[in-house]
Amino acid sequence: MQRFALIGAGFIGSVHAANLAAHPGIDFRLVYDVDQQRAQNLAAAHGAAAAATLEEAFDASAIDAVFIASSTDTHAGHLRRAAAVGLAVLCEKPIDLDLDRARDTAAYAQECGVPVMVDFNRRFDRDYAELKRVVDSGGIGKVELIQLTSRGPSMPPLSYVAVSGGQMRDQTVHFFDLARWLSGLDPVEVFATGSALAEPGIAEYDDVDTSAVTLRLPGGALVQIDSVRRTGYGYDERIEIMGSDGMVEARRHRNGAVSRYSGTSVVDDGLHPGWFERVQPTYAAALAAFVAALESSAAPGPSLEDGLKAQAIAEAAVLSLRTGRMEPIKY
Amino acid sequence: MQRFALIGAGFIGSVHAANLAAHPGIDFRLVYDVDQQRAQNLAAAHGAAAAATLEEAFDASAIDAVFIASSTDTHAGHLRRAAAVGLAVLCEKPIDLDLDRARDTAAYAQECGVPVMVDFNRRFDRDYAELKRVVDSGGIGKVELIQLTSRGPSMPPLSYVAVSGGQMRDQTVHFFDLARWLSGLDPVEVFATGSALAEPGIAEYDDVDTSAVTLRLPGGALVQIDSVRRTGYGYDERIEIMGSDGMVEARRHRNGAVSRYSGTSVVDDGLHPGWFERVQPTYAAALAAFVAALESSAAPGPSLEDGLKAQAIAEAAVLSLRTGRMEPIKY
Amino acid sequence: MQRFALIGAGFIGSVHAANLAAHPGIDFRLVYDVDQQRAQNLAAAHGAAAAATLEEAFDASAIDAVFIASSTDTHAGHLRRAAAVGLAVLCEKPIDLDLDRARDTAAYAQECGVPVMVDFNRRFDRDYAELKRVVDSGGIGKVELIQLTSRGPSMPPLSYVAVSGGQMRDQTVHFFDLARWLSGLDPVEVFATGSALAEPGIAEYDDVDTSAVTLRLPGGALVQIDSVRRTGYGYDERIEIMGSDGMVEARRHRNGAVSRYSGTSVVDDGLHPGWFERVQPTYAAALAAFVAALESSAAPGPSLEDGLKAQAIAEAAVLSLRTGRMEPIKY
Amino acid sequence: MQRFALIGAGFIGSVHAANLAAHPGIDFRLVYDVDQQRAQNLAAAHGAAAAATLEEAFDASAIDAVFIASSTDTHAGHLRRAAAVGLAVLCEKPIDLDLDRARDTAAYAQECGVPVMVDFNRRFDRDYAELKRVVDSGGIGKVELIQLTSRGPSMPPLSYVAVSGGQMRDQTVHFFDLARWLSGLDPVEVFATGSALAEPGIAEYDDVDTSAVTLRLPGGALVQIDSVRRTGYGYDERIEIMGSDGMVEARRHRNGAVSRYSGTSVVDDGLHPGWFERVQPTYAAALAAFVAALESSAAPGPSLEDGLKAQAIAEAAVLSLRTGRMEPIKY
Repeated sequence: MQRFALIGAGFIGSVHAANLAAHPGIDFRLVYDVDQQRAQNLAAAHGAAAAATLEEAFDASAIDAVFIASSTDTHAGHLRRAAAVGLAVLCEKPIDLDLDRARDTAAYAQECGVPVMVDFNRRFDRDYAELKRVVDSGGIGKVELIQLTSRGPSMPPLSYVAVSGGQMRDQTVHFFDLARWLSGLDPVEVFATGSALAEPGIAEYDDVDTSAVTLRLPGGALVQIDSVRRTGYGYDERIEIMGSDGMVEARRHRNGAVSRYSGTSVVDDGLHPGWFERVQPTYAAALAAFVAALESSAAPGPSLEDGLKAQAIAEAAVLSLRTGRMEPIKY
Repeated sequence: MQRFALIGAGFIGSVHAANLAAHPGIDFRLVYDVDQQRAQNLAAAHGAAAAATLEEAFDASAIDAVFIASSTDTHAGHLRRAAAVGLAVLCEKPIDLDLDRARDTAAYAQECGVPVMVDFNRRFDRDYAELKRVVDSGGIGKVELIQLTSRGPSMPPLSYVAVSGGQMRDQTVHFFDLARWLSGLDPVEVFATGSALAEPGIAEYDDVDTSAVTLRLPGGALVQIDSVRRTGYGYDERIEIMGSDGMVEARRHRNGAVSRYSGTSVVDDGLHPGWFERVQPTYAAALAAFVAALESSAAPGPSLEDGLKAQAIAEAAVLSLRTGRMEPIKY
Repeated sequence: MQRFALIGAGFIGSVHAANLAAHPGIDFRLVYDVDQQRAQNLAAAHGAAAAATLEEAFDASAIDAVFIASSTDTHAGHLRRAAAVGLAVLCEKPIDLDLDRARDTAAYAQECGVPVMVDFNRRFDRDYAELKRVVDSGGIGKVELIQLTSRGPSMPPLSYVAVSGGQMRDQTVHFFDLARWLSGLDPVEVFATGSALAEPGIAEYDDVDTSAVTLRLPGGALVQIDSVRRTGYGYDERIEIMGSDGMVEARRHRNGAVSRYSGTSVVDDGLHPGWFERVQPTYAAALAAFVAALESSAAPGPSLEDGLKAQAIAEAAVLSLRTGRMEPIKY
Repeated sequence: MQRFALIGAGFIGSVHAANLAAHPGIDFRLVYDVDQQRAQNLAAAHGAAAAATLEEAFDASAIDAVFIASSTDTHAGHLRRAAAVGLAVLCEKPIDLDLDRARDTAAYAQECGVPVMVDFNRRFDRDYAELKRVVDSGGIGKVELIQLTSRGPSMPPLSYVAVSGGQMRDQTVHFFDLARWLSGLDPVEVFATGSALAEPGIAEYDDVDTSAVTLRLPGGALVQIDSVRRTGYGYDERIEIMGSDGMVEARRHRNGAVSRYSGTSVVDDGLHPGWFERVQPTYAAALAAFVAALESSAAPGPSLEDGLKAQAIAEAAVLSLRTGRMEPIKY
């Protein structure tokens, strides 16, 4: 049994809490949150206790692993603290919005030798795992072109946008990771262009809500990613990977399988209302993979290096948004 | 080159005329119709001549084959006339609405030794031919269950219903033929039940517009057919064949491939407006198969026997509609 | 909070146990099973206790409701016991394989005035609930034709077949209930025919594994149901309802949304491996509906009467299998 | 009746010949080809005559319109000749591979005042016309993002590549036109990157076979186009247009509608084997639109200006392939 403390009791923390409680190999001990009452409520709902202090939550004599799901600006600090006392860490992305600080933090954690996994949960999606299996088994030959679509249903509030790091670092970064993971290659160059169409107000934050990114992989394979904050038709995510011998596609998901025929058209159930309905099962699957790695003393993945590389692509993309040219990616 | 005369210049005659004109191995000579003007118009549109008399249309010195597409009650007479003078015949179904007369006519044609094909055009549908290929190649093992759906978009006029022979003989008979052809088996028993739901007035003609038929094949495999005169959502036809090793399905056809995503639903292009749009390519394919058989001196098919057998199933189905029990089929 | 005892700790009992444990309005107290060890294991996994005796499990001072998930032959006895002491009951179908005993049991429970729900779980499927909503809202006009497909992936063991009551009472009965519920009408006549194709050995049990059923509804609407024990291609369930103004369809579910394009074909993920993967979410939804009814003192449904009516249709279908004719249904 | 001469009797010329012969408002008079025998064969197959000389083919006293379907390097010359004598022109794209010469030619034709249409046939695809209708009717609000996929099944021979002008000018140019037409906007900037993956040999021609293009439209809307010469899985073309109120998609076309279910997968009919099967009906539709414009004295479209603008985008894309940066488009 792995004894866990959960850091952060907000929306995503509560998702993780339910998964921690349901996993048969996890002893879900503690919840910590800057808002004590919130920590107590979430802990009580799942038979855990609220940690009164960070010291308690990071007490290596009572805890084996921490799940860091607090606000982004606290990730690096919590990760260092956990590494310092030898706790295993499952950490929400990003390590830190500042890539240099993220690198330092990762280096420190590596020195400490603790197992750390970055929660790029989409890698654990059933369909994406199948894409990966097909590619790795040579089912489509050599990868030549990847198309990724990442489209959210509605504009997040400006208050969120302000601290998100922008579309590349906050949204598209998941697909930078998927592109690396699915192809097994580190992109060498990136081009990005975008606009503030759904919410012109975000231009003040030097941000975009609709963007087109192109990556070049070693050997010349190409990746196109479109990222949209507000579709007006639900949550839309899909991936195509074309290779020298064929193509494999993870189709968009529908919210149901009912079709209504009348007159000259057919009305089907639409897409999921939001990202959460689409990716919900991936969180439990990611957690299970982390626990399985701890149990078998294997290195859990996605690793800190994976987290850093996705961020490095995002940084180059942000630069390209400004320069209007293909930028090299510096890992 | 096969020299053809077309008998009948109505709607379906005009479809056949265009195919006769376009086929490179056909010399389209004559059109006959009881309405001379109609014959002349159709002939003129395709570089053929109008036959003034039946004698001219059935003149074996100038014609090799006749395509009988006149009204149902004239089929048997024209078929006899053609057979008597040695002309090859492609005949719209049925041979005659009266099964005994149809049998006599078929026997006479067989005696005369002329090649005759009954135009069960759906056998030449690209998708149904593929179903047949999969079944014959053993792709689904031994056939166990067949589902056929035959649904028209709107109620035909009562004047048509009155002379149609009823839903079993007029509409479902195509699917009796498909069931035989696809399974390679002659059904042994049939159960049918139906209602006059779309047009209660047809009950006066002892007819139904919505029906459910079950066939038993030798060995115990089952066939279900639903036949509908009026869907309100376009023309709907589909077939599933389940066997001991899998299933093969010819999905419903859509009228286009456009999807509109908005809010919580997806609106797709609907079905074809009518049967003609769905089966149009099958007429040319059937004609081509007939000509190919003539050229190679092979027996064309579907044969007269195929026509008679489909009618025999329809007769037993009509009886079952009345008795409410499974009826044996007498071929 | 509703205090529950679970009767039966086999496969389906363990499914219900997990749902009982997860429901926030349920205090999951006791598990009873004829195999004490099995009861203890299941109880321990979910923080409940094992009941040493039936008396303990049906103690109305400690329990509000029992969930009967034991073997079929024990349902009626447990239901009577619960009703006698005033416990609410959620009961797996059927009440009893013998329709007369089922009726007596239902009458007794009704006399006792306890709330009873029969667990026709498919009524709580997301897609089927949507079909019902569309039909009830008049979205397809008057119901005219229903097509139901019920096909399991592989033949159950003969030992199961022997005590199952046969395909009509065990498998098709769920679709008799769906036909009634979706149309809002009680079928008046039934025709059934079937064969032992997948496992000829079941003919010794006077049973079939592949069958075709036709129901007539009041007013003449028709229902076709095909039931198959072994598909060889996974679990296949689908429903179409055609009305005077359109059609609504609950499509077959796929096991994933990945497509592989190569050469001249596209290979998609197939169907669910078994019925459980297809209907899993319906069990929790049914339980939630039962609890909601108890909380609001509404009558839970599907009711005992619903259970009896589905069984009555099955009995008439079994008779029709023998007589080869349309049989009236006696409720 | 419009009297037509066809210039060019190669593959695409023979496609146009069949359409010219079948159109009821066209009197198909002459075929000209540098290979006289080829002209005679094609003319004979459709009841037309072979023109012995270009003078005969461009004789305005006997001909109303010419259809230019000869090799690319002859387009401009034929177009000038037709314009000089007042003949209407339907011209295969491009006007000339050299944009300056194309502009001069277009200017001359415009001076002459003859009606000219450039045969961007995809505008006449049933599904793309529906996309346009939805966009123009405001069905998706303001256009924000367009995704176009253009993928051929197999590498064309190097001899073709050598004279094609390259992937941008030869293949992607159709989608530059579609992007303009569907959005109703002239792109202002373009970024392109590509690789020679399917056939490294084409790098010698400074060409690519797999490319990713991004366009910026006035107002900030974005367009992504992926172009592939060799898929290995058939001909793949699809378009998505996302707007402020929803999205509309023209899905990829399948070669048939048969699905084979067995084991754990479903095998569907794949894509069309080549571009011709996908777009075949568009040629007749384009010709019909041209004739309809002539009959009503309206200006036919796509116009010469449309042709020039698509070429101008291609030129900027070719430049971007080299510079690795977003390039302004000069119309």
